[in-house]
Amino acid sequence: MSNIIDGKEIANIKKNALIKEINSVKDKLKLVVIQVGNDPASDVYVRNKRKICEELGILFNHLKYESISEDDLITTIEKLNNEKEVTGILVQLPLPKNIDEKKVIEAISPLKDVDGLTKANVGNLFSFQDGLKPCTALGVIEILDCANTKIEGKNVVIVGRSRLVGLPLISLFLKRNATVTICHSKTENLKDITKKADILVVAIGKKEYIKEDYVKDGAVVIDVGINRENGKLYGDCDFENIKDKCSKITKVPGGVGPLTVIMLASNVVEAYKLQNR
Amino acid sequence: MSNIIDGKEIANIKKNALIKEINSVKDKLKLVVIQVGNDPASDVYVRNKRKICEELGILFNHLKYESISEDDLITTIEKLNNEKEVTGILVQLPLPKNIDEKKVIEAISPLKDVDGLTKANVGNLFSFQDGLKPCTALGVIEILDCANTKIEGKNVVIVGRSRLVGLPLISLFLKRNATVTICHSKTENLKDITKKADILVVAIGKKEYIKEDYVKDGAVVIDVGINRENGKLYGDCDFENIKDKCSKITKVPGGVGPLTVIMLASNVVEAYKLQNR
Repeated sequence: MSNIIDGKEIANIKKNALIKEINSVKDKLKLVVIQVGNDPASDVYVRNKRKICEELGILFNHLKYESISEDDLITTIEKLNNEKEVTGILVQLPLPKNIDEKKVIEAISPLKDVDGLTKANVGNLFSFQDGLKPCTALGVIEILDCANTKIEGKNVVIVGRSRLVGLPLISLFLKRNATVTICHSKTENLKDITKKADILVVAIGKKEYIKEDYVKDGAVVIDVGINRENGKLYGDCDFENIKDKCSKITKVPGGVGPLTVIMLASNVVEAYKLQNR
Repeated sequence: MSNIIDGKEIANIKKNALIKEINSVKDKLKLVVIQVGNDPASDVYVRNKRKICEELGILFNHLKYESISEDDLITTIEKLNNEKEVTGILVQLPLPKNIDEKKVIEAISPLKDVDGLTKANVGNLFSFQDGLKPCTALGVIEILDCANTKIEGKNVVIVGRSRLVGLPLISLFLKRNATVTICHSKTENLKDITKKADILVVAIGKKEYIKEDYVKDGAVVIDVGINRENGKLYGDCDFENIKDKCSKITKVPGGVGPLTVIMLASNVVEAYKLQNR
């Protein structure tokens, strides 16, 4: 039996469950994605978001601005906050440097903040209360659950402390009673630490950085990295080098990626529930 | 030279710095502590808070209710939120079981929440933004800094994940670029993990639980435990058993305790600054 976790298959199962849920909701759901500037990677991400929304029957509105002032952007968001038919609002990052990202994110209503980045939702997450949580972090947990990986009591090592992946995963794993270690660029003895992991999650954005000597025999490895080089995608883990040591491992592409967009759609449904409870 | 970190001495240094700061502020600072019921431990804690406020020239108002309804308690807090002369509001925990603690805490204005427990302040903390942070967690960092302990790059192991100590310390240590591991009651191999710690912080409320075989040679150990037995105080660490292994260690009493109340006073000053910036 293969030890490769098939992210696409898990995404499909989750997708079918979501379609049922969306069909049972009396209102039409709607996601608005705001993009500023012309980052080509952002174009790809937005396209993937549109695709999944269309497949699931969520209305999708793409507001793309060549350029816009910070004030006008915030005014746009505030208008969307007040539109009852808008379920979720997502600001595609990064924003151009002349715009204060934090200020713009904070303008989103926490009940529509499907990226889970507002301080209110970070507060919910680390208070273990209801709220919207970052999609990729949710995708990691979803993958582990679907692959029947026990989390409680396990040594989980997270490499990377981004606010979209590493940081929120601390709370999600703690809630599941894992012992959690968080490593980052200033970690002095990374290899010694990752080698102790029962579950190793890597999200550092460094192509094939994690090699065989970073991984314990029998570990479950979740590779969140997406590194583009000459049109090809690479993970943060050297898949061929480590795959035989792992009891389970995700691939890039085809691992966490497909789950991330599904969890975004799931967050739109979650946002609807929070708005209507 | 002794390897014992003297919490009282550090608290005194911090106290003198705070007195200067408080004297330089044009308004009189005021802390209101709300207590419900007759928990004898709470009486002691409130008395210590009053004492430090009086020493530092912070007005102290103790609202003690034998019993009060949740609604009336929340109304009281909302009134205090609006009183300009009230700088800080603290609800002494635990509350009687008929009162929803979360709801009461959330009623406190985040700008006056000197315990740092509102979701807004948890959000600030884990977004690495300005806000009020739990006193005991701040006290731990203060102790390490005053004892000239390098934090960046070190393996920090926190035992206990309470919202007043363990959880906020994750963010405080990450901000200082430590590698952070958080353990708790479901951790399966505690000893193996604590033994790797350069800095070990214990806050589990179990008398002298941490013995010699939990500690690495040369580790810095911060004992946050306060366990009462027959009128005597014990830490979570077996001090006599581990002290010779540690490069630095705090004692109970006389370690983190004196810092906690000082950091509360420091939070009142911080609250004033946040309200007046």
